[in-house]
Amino acid sequence: MTDQVIAGTDLSRLRELNSLTVVRALRDQPPTTVTELANVTGLSRPAVDVIAQGLVSSGWATVVEPGGSSTVGRPARRYRFRATAGHVIGVDVGAHKILVLLADLDGNVVQTSRCAVAADADPAERLAALDQILAQSLQESGKSPADIWAVTVGVTGPVDASGRTTLFTPLPGWRTVDLAAHLSDRFTCPIIVENDCKLAALAERWQGTARDANDIVFLLAGMRLGAGLIIDGVLRRGYGGAAGEIGALKAVRWLTAPSHLEKCPGVPATVNPDDAAAWVFNAARAGNRDARTAVNRYVKDLAIGTAALVLALDPQVVVYGGGFSRSADLVLEPLHRELQKLCLRVPDVRASTLGADSVALGALRLALNEVDQRLFTMGLSAPVAPRRD
Amino acid sequence: MTDQVIAGTDLSRLRELNSLTVVRALRDQPPTTVTELANVTGLSRPAVDVIAQGLVSSGWATVVEPGGSSTVGRPARRYRFRATAGHVIGVDVGAHKILVLLADLDGNVVQTSRCAVAADADPAERLAALDQILAQSLQESGKSPADIWAVTVGVTGPVDASGRTTLFTPLPGWRTVDLAAHLSDRFTCPIIVENDCKLAALAERWQGTARDANDIVFLLAGMRLGAGLIIDGVLRRGYGGAAGEIGALKAVRWLTAPSHLEKCPGVPATVNPDDAAAWVFNAARAGNRDARTAVNRYVKDLAIGTAALVLALDPQVVVYGGGFSRSADLVLEPLHRELQKLCLRVPDVRASTLGADSVALGALRLALNEVDQRLFTMGLSAPVAPRRD
Repeated sequence: MTDQVIAGTDLSRLRELNSLTVVRALRDQPPTTVTELANVTGLSRPAVDVIAQGLVSSGWATVVEPGGSSTVGRPARRYRFRATAGHVIGVDVGAHKILVLLADLDGNVVQTSRCAVAADADPAERLAALDQILAQSLQESGKSPADIWAVTVGVTGPVDASGRTTLFTPLPGWRTVDLAAHLSDRFTCPIIVENDCKLAALAERWQGTARDANDIVFLLAGMRLGAGLIIDGVLRRGYGGAAGEIGALKAVRWLTAPSHLEKCPGVPATVNPDDAAAWVFNAARAGNRDARTAVNRYVKDLAIGTAALVLALDPQVVVYGGGFSRSADLVLEPLHRELQKLCLRVPDVRASTLGADSVALGALRLALNEVDQRLFTMGLSAPVAPRRD
Repeated sequence: MTDQVIAGTDLSRLRELNSLTVVRALRDQPPTTVTELANVTGLSRPAVDVIAQGLVSSGWATVVEPGGSSTVGRPARRYRFRATAGHVIGVDVGAHKILVLLADLDGNVVQTSRCAVAADADPAERLAALDQILAQSLQESGKSPADIWAVTVGVTGPVDASGRTTLFTPLPGWRTVDLAAHLSDRFTCPIIVENDCKLAALAERWQGTARDANDIVFLLAGMRLGAGLIIDGVLRRGYGGAAGEIGALKAVRWLTAPSHLEKCPGVPATVNPDDAAAWVFNAARAGNRDARTAVNRYVKDLAIGTAALVLALDPQVVVYGGGFSRSADLVLEPLHRELQKLCLRVPDVRASTLGADSVALGALRLALNEVDQRLFTMGLSAPVAPRRD
């Protein structure tokens, strides 16, 4: 018997706490031996042995049997966190598309589903499309709603504490939508709604180009421009959830920046307005003078709002992300040059490596944070007890 | 004997740690009884008794004898942190003046010294004036440099990690000045140089109008406009010390805002350019039409840069501070109105209650933080051992 009975402490609660300590030591780590776990947790080797076997039976850990390559003594068995104990879903509800990522607890994406939505779709249509794509994601991955431990959905516009975009959203009629309430009909797990730019910033620090940085200005560049801020390693939501909305200020030119692309002379009438920017970037690459002028004007306007954020916050890194990051080859260098003219100290300027998937990826990261937070503050029974496959 | 000998722990080190625990429990608290201290620290009552008496002998605590008013039993004696164990100095080196505040460890100002400096004074003149006013402050308060545990100096312009204003400063020739090195000839304690706007923001949260807030945009308003940001309760310095410098961006109009006051028609030729703004504010109060127009234009330009910060950060409070806060009666309400037009969510807009002293007060706060940080991470011998009066 390795647990100690301490006056006033319930024995089963103590076992639970010790198990949680071992789960925490396994989480986000490579496979670990009992000896290593004992060192890290301060628990005795025999206690860890019992706990680790218990975590395997209850589905929180798996055994990694040693390979046969060791020549000195018998190699130790290792334990690893069982990432498939639960799953999370990250969603990007955009103007033109809905993207759903379903991932295990290590953030490995096991299912990707995507559908187009009309930009002028009303809330009922958009919610119906969301429901359908979520159902498809669950079905194709062989999961039921009860297998999902957290859902995060990214939307455009500042998100208030109730998960609504009451201040502003370009999605038609979306101001009054209560997305968390809508989804709670299907899911019993926590549901978080968050601003798309903020989620994309999280993704860039998690898996993208800003993994080394704690002070990040992220630009979500498309036919609209938005920003997500990470300050001292923490996502800045703002007192009312409206941080990063500098684009609303006419003086910093983000409202007009993309229109230089849209209005570029020579865009063929057959090109859909949503694809005009891609046409202009391609034409600029091919040397078209009007297209080059349009890109230059776009970058000059982009630089004003970016400089406002850089001067305000003095970040380490600016990340140019979103759909337009596919054309970063035309934007990064002139943007950097403009910032040198406008700013006192110029940060690194980098292109997103995650592109248009960054919002859904950031949604996964926030969902995983929610799972870990519940797990490590509330205990192993908090998210959902894992089941054996 | 109340200390326990624990294997591998040096007994005197354990005593020091227990003493530090009691000092921490006394710091920033009202006078406290041994019983209360025992409850807070988890040490035994007899142990706390011995430690508290030791802290009195060594100068860290004083005894507050009970008054005679209690009718039930013998009232307990109380101990309190001895704030005069050490002192700190906060300095504001401005374009026109130097202000020195000398305070005890509770932040009670015991000496204020002030002198005028010419705006065009070269670094040698400004440093000579600083040396003289520091000498005067020490002399009039009966202190020697060894009595001072930390010095913080506020200067204009972003301050880098070495304490210099290499990126920009309006003080003539000041870019190359190494103020910390200069002052270390006189003081052996830590010397911190920090940007004036950042210090004023700290002061406003410590003793001013933003004591209830963790998310603050502070405006230092005078013939130049600057900003200090407090985010999630932490002063934002920026990756290179240059946060809050949004005023450098022409598009947000802070570079031109004060010029509307300076160039207001009707300012008498006899009025010094530095006093023109005060004349205009007074004239506007008296109903002068040109002065009212100038103030309106000033506020409209002030609002653009302020809106950029509000939209970027979504703070709880905007504080209008600095020298011009004397005229907040003319500025606050129209500023709020402009922000309502420009921002998605409008924060509280408040006038500073500290005015032109806020920079030096914030410098005191930063010096006190430095003392506490050294004390509680390095031990009672770290700052300077206190001496009996």
